[in-house]
Amino acid sequence: MQNALIYNPDDTICAISTAPGVGGIAVARVSGREALVKVSAIWKGKDLAVVPTHTAHLGKIIGPDGEILDEAVATVFRNPASFTGEDVVEISVHGSRWIQAQLIQALISAGCRLALPGEFTRRAFAAGRLDLAQAEAVADVIASTSKASHRLAMSQMRGNYSKKIDAMRAELVQLASLLELELDFSEEEVEFASRSRLLELSDGLSEHLARAAASFKAGQAIKAGVPVAIIGNTNAGKSSLLNALVADDRAIVSDIHGTTRDVVEDTVEIGEYLVRFQDTAGLRDTDDPVERMGIERSRNAADAARIIIYVVDASAGVTPSSAALDFSCGDSSLIIVANKCDLANDFDDAAWHEAYPHAEILHCSALHGSGIEDLRETITRILAADTATADIIVANARHAEALGLAADSLRALSSSLREGIPTDLAAQDLRQAIHHLSSITGTITTPEILQNIFMNFCIGK
Amino acid sequence: MQNALIYNPDDTICAISTAPGVGGIAVARVSGREALVKVSAIWKGKDLAVVPTHTAHLGKIIGPDGEILDEAVATVFRNPASFTGEDVVEISVHGSRWIQAQLIQALISAGCRLALPGEFTRRAFAAGRLDLAQAEAVADVIASTSKASHRLAMSQMRGNYSKKIDAMRAELVQLASLLELELDFSEEEVEFASRSRLLELSDGLSEHLARAAASFKAGQAIKAGVPVAIIGNTNAGKSSLLNALVADDRAIVSDIHGTTRDVVEDTVEIGEYLVRFQDTAGLRDTDDPVERMGIERSRNAADAARIIIYVVDASAGVTPSSAALDFSCGDSSLIIVANKCDLANDFDDAAWHEAYPHAEILHCSALHGSGIEDLRETITRILAADTATADIIVANARHAEALGLAADSLRALSSSLREGIPTDLAAQDLRQAIHHLSSITGTITTPEILQNIFMNFCIGK
Repeated sequence: MQNALIYNPDDTICAISTAPGVGGIAVARVSGREALVKVSAIWKGKDLAVVPTHTAHLGKIIGPDGEILDEAVATVFRNPASFTGEDVVEISVHGSRWIQAQLIQALISAGCRLALPGEFTRRAFAAGRLDLAQAEAVADVIASTSKASHRLAMSQMRGNYSKKIDAMRAELVQLASLLELELDFSEEEVEFASRSRLLELSDGLSEHLARAAASFKAGQAIKAGVPVAIIGNTNAGKSSLLNALVADDRAIVSDIHGTTRDVVEDTVEIGEYLVRFQDTAGLRDTDDPVERMGIERSRNAADAARIIIYVVDASAGVTPSSAALDFSCGDSSLIIVANKCDLANDFDDAAWHEAYPHAEILHCSALHGSGIEDLRETITRILAADTATADIIVANARHAEALGLAADSLRALSSSLREGIPTDLAAQDLRQAIHHLSSITGTITTPEILQNIFMNFCIGK
Repeated sequence: MQNALIYNPDDTICAISTAPGVGGIAVARVSGREALVKVSAIWKGKDLAVVPTHTAHLGKIIGPDGEILDEAVATVFRNPASFTGEDVVEISVHGSRWIQAQLIQALISAGCRLALPGEFTRRAFAAGRLDLAQAEAVADVIASTSKASHRLAMSQMRGNYSKKIDAMRAELVQLASLLELELDFSEEEVEFASRSRLLELSDGLSEHLARAAASFKAGQAIKAGVPVAIIGNTNAGKSSLLNALVADDRAIVSDIHGTTRDVVEDTVEIGEYLVRFQDTAGLRDTDDPVERMGIERSRNAADAARIIIYVVDASAGVTPSSAALDFSCGDSSLIIVANKCDLANDFDDAAWHEAYPHAEILHCSALHGSGIEDLRETITRILAADTATADIIVANARHAEALGLAADSLRALSSSLREGIPTDLAAQDLRQAIHHLSSITGTITTPEILQNIFMNFCIGK
């Protein structure tokens, strides 16, 4: 049904805005030029067309069969002082499935159209109440499940992120104006902006943009959960460690069995972060083809992880050279956990420090729970450092792509400048870079881009 | 946690009132003497303590960590013009799980208590805004899944049901006043109310009450879904018939596999009613012990059904005497469906009519869908007749019990009157009957009764 619907800003739209299912109350939202008229058609109570904005009224809803469907509270928000900038009525009814379905049916009979996914937010954008990055953040705010992801989305929704994007854009525009100046006076062979100065600016900005684009990895991890792989030899105590890490937060644990048979994922909040722990198959040399596949998957999990926790049996005399740690950590942080310290502890910290100078080394007993709090704090500290120095954290793939393209354009500008290519050709790349940044906040946009963005929203938002 | 909470009307209570889960928006409700003060403690925006009642205000919620949690709309309802009769604030926030949890956390930190199940409705009862039967109907309204169950609950919530209970109670009180008159003048041996007149009233009222109590079967069927058993010989086409009945409403079908392996239940809306079709094992004489157990279960389903649909293969020359219809229909209505009429039709309507004079007989082809609409209409007609002549439909087990006990008391009164037992002893039974009816609307109640009633509500209502 929704596929058949077309965005038409003249329609008055309606949808249930609260979570699907049965609740004490449910709220339907109606927005559009004729919101007050259309709701009045199914309303028995004070005349909503004449009540002041931001007032709530007790009345009755007439169902599609003409009978009284429910007692309801209708709250009127007159344009422009509403979420969408249009006239909005919020109708609060008893939250049965039956009433919710009948209420929407009644509104549709009265001439409303079922809202497209995200259409209320899209209208807020169209009315200039939110820029595009802020509008996109609304969906992220709703989907947030941890303090860090909530804060990231909230900050974006409230416009802090857009300010930073706009600041970058302003720098590009300044660079452009220097180039234009040079163009204006090109007949006179005057260089208002020295090439070296332009090059310096372009290099600096492209690096800035590339850094912002690269923050997407951290942003994505915050948004979707930070992947942390637990690897190590068989019987090092990896699963016990996972259980110990997860136990304190058992109430908010969800078990997600991976598509791969051998990597089990547990999602848990650690500090402000949602962490997706991945318990992997034990590493060891083996000729068993199935076990080798499992080990291959462990390596893949390690490659994708933000943090690798390498678990060593501290009672088994494992040395750095005898360990199976024969994979690259890439960008990941490494924590080496000397487990089973309660049994015996012949773990040679110095040797491991020497072998893995960037790794954190912790002692613990997963079985007795000792050292687990240290481990949680270490994880939090590493993740906090990811974002502490960042000017901007990008959590949106579309934005990361636009920033990356803008950085590419500036790199092209830099090489043009280096190669002495005429200024008007070089300016082309700069305009591209500005275009990409403008697409983030929606200064420049197309109906297709908007449709792609809002189709991922839920209906009712 | 909730078990530890105690109902204290002085507390200011809070809860998320919308359906659990993620939605565009979620609404928290706060009610109590200090609702405005406590919400103000986590609110950044207009001073809620001074705004007029029934006004909505945009502002910000301060989370438990002191940071801004979300932008929100707070709607103020001042006592007594609120659902609970107390000061109420409804806080509408973005519907993420994180925000919902943090909002409740913040309200609790500000001194609110998490509401007990149904506590908002209980306070509305305590404030005299709803009687007890109306309060109970709030939960039924929220749970309703069909037009008939919705209408029944709605009517009760709006007080129509209570009026009828009160009318019955008024009749009892009138009878009591006649008895009291007789008592007052007992010294003088004057019978102000003749014994025969009293007896007539008592008999009539006890029958009225018993009929109301008996309506619980129909009320329960409307509320929980009407059980309809599909039975018949093996290969008569029972499952095809079920599929044909259910197909038109596939969108709202839910498959519930019974606890018994052999009775499969499909729930579907037919007309205004939610119908629970029970497809049963085919009936036939068998020595197989497992199959006999299945047939036993078919009989049990038939016993519990409001309607029995007996399916006959019309192309197989089955006669009433050769059919396996060797069970009692009890109170159930019987529909005999001659199936497979497209293949051949040697079904002898007259013989079946003679054998089952009260049964409806229909011809159909489950495979081709012919006759199915007739069958649906027949089912609707039978169910509508259940309630058409009823003065009152009781859908609440507590009420049915109270009505039954009141009827019992009146029957005892009648026999006392018949046996010439002194009026003051007889009046005792009448007072019992009045007590039971009073318990329905809550004129007489106890904290224990209230607790039992409201613990079955959801939190937030």
